[in-house]
Amino acid sequence: MMYCSVCGAKTEFRVPADDNRPRHLCNQCNTIHYENPKIICGCLVTYQDKVLLCKRAIEPRSGLWTLPAGFMENGETAGEGALRETYEEAYARPQLGELYALTSIPYISQVYMIFRAELDAPEFGPGPESLEVELFAADEIPWDRLAFQTVTRTLEHWIEDQKTGHFPLHTIDIQERIQARV
Amino acid sequence: MMYCSVCGAKTEFRVPADDNRPRHLCNQCNTIHYENPKIICGCLVTYQDKVLLCKRAIEPRSGLWTLPAGFMENGETAGEGALRETYEEAYARPQLGELYALTSIPYISQVYMIFRAELDAPEFGPGPESLEVELFAADEIPWDRLAFQTVTRTLEHWIEDQKTGHFPLHTIDIQERIQARV
Repeated sequence: MMYCSVCGAKTEFRVPADDNRPRHLCNQCNTIHYENPKIICGCLVTYQDKVLLCKRAIEPRSGLWTLPAGFMENGETAGEGALRETYEEAYARPQLGELYALTSIPYISQVYMIFRAELDAPEFGPGPESLEVELFAADEIPWDRLAFQTVTRTLEHWIEDQKTGHFPLHTIDIQERIQARV
Repeated sequence: MMYCSVCGAKTEFRVPADDNRPRHLCNQCNTIHYENPKIICGCLVTYQDKVLLCKRAIEPRSGLWTLPAGFMENGETAGEGALRETYEEAYARPQLGELYALTSIPYISQVYMIFRAELDAPEFGPGPESLEVELFAADEIPWDRLAFQTVTRTLEHWIEDQKTGHFPLHTIDIQERIQARV
């Protein structure tokens, strides 16, 4: 941020009074421009014993597989956002379940909220941001072609939890960027 | 947003190509300025069978009681943010537990993430944004002096769950603003 979005003056990056970290400040209109983490919401969609993955048509990680998810929008609930993204990316309309994976990625200031969701019928297809959408059994997951660490971690939990039939919330913190596997 | 924070030109509010909702756009440098929900993270801190509440020293709802919570900052995990806010507002350093209440408030584009947390000893006190910090038993909660609907809803769940000793995640959507009770 170089300019104040309220008045157009140049901003300064310093610690405001009564604060403990630097912010983008406008010395003309005195606005403090806070920047905060963004929420990515989506679904771990299942049909019978398979999970729905989308092959990304867009960067980053175009061509790799992911869970349907995207930035939560203003004016929606987390669950509404998760279902909206699932429809936009996979043309799927599952029944929303509970929050399943809460992943913090502090080095990019993102929080993933992935809900479980169940399809009544195997009806889905690629939205504009997907090349393909497919159901995968546990032993079919393309581990070396997954787009993001959070997808890998969430699917690892799902595979373990399938064995017990108990799917508790998993809180995941990803502290280090790793090289893409492909 | 009236001005582009990247280049200082006036912005326009319209639907970008390949999008489905209006955004603040810069016609000079072509930046799309997305606005997304903010996360408020905090803790439902308990000591034995009591819960820790803070009387707010700041607006909004100054003088009313709340759970220690505040805006999550870039560069931290949700749990780190919850503990940071708990220390800043209540000078308390509890052991962090599981996510307990996930509250979406779409009309103000906020998502509350409240974690359970347990104190080893009753050590706490008011931080700069609090007038008082106190432990309340279930039958002592000042229901008509609580600051926010999300606090009321979260405490109602806690009271019910105390009866069973089982504290599952509660997903709460607050769709309507209600009048402050005081």
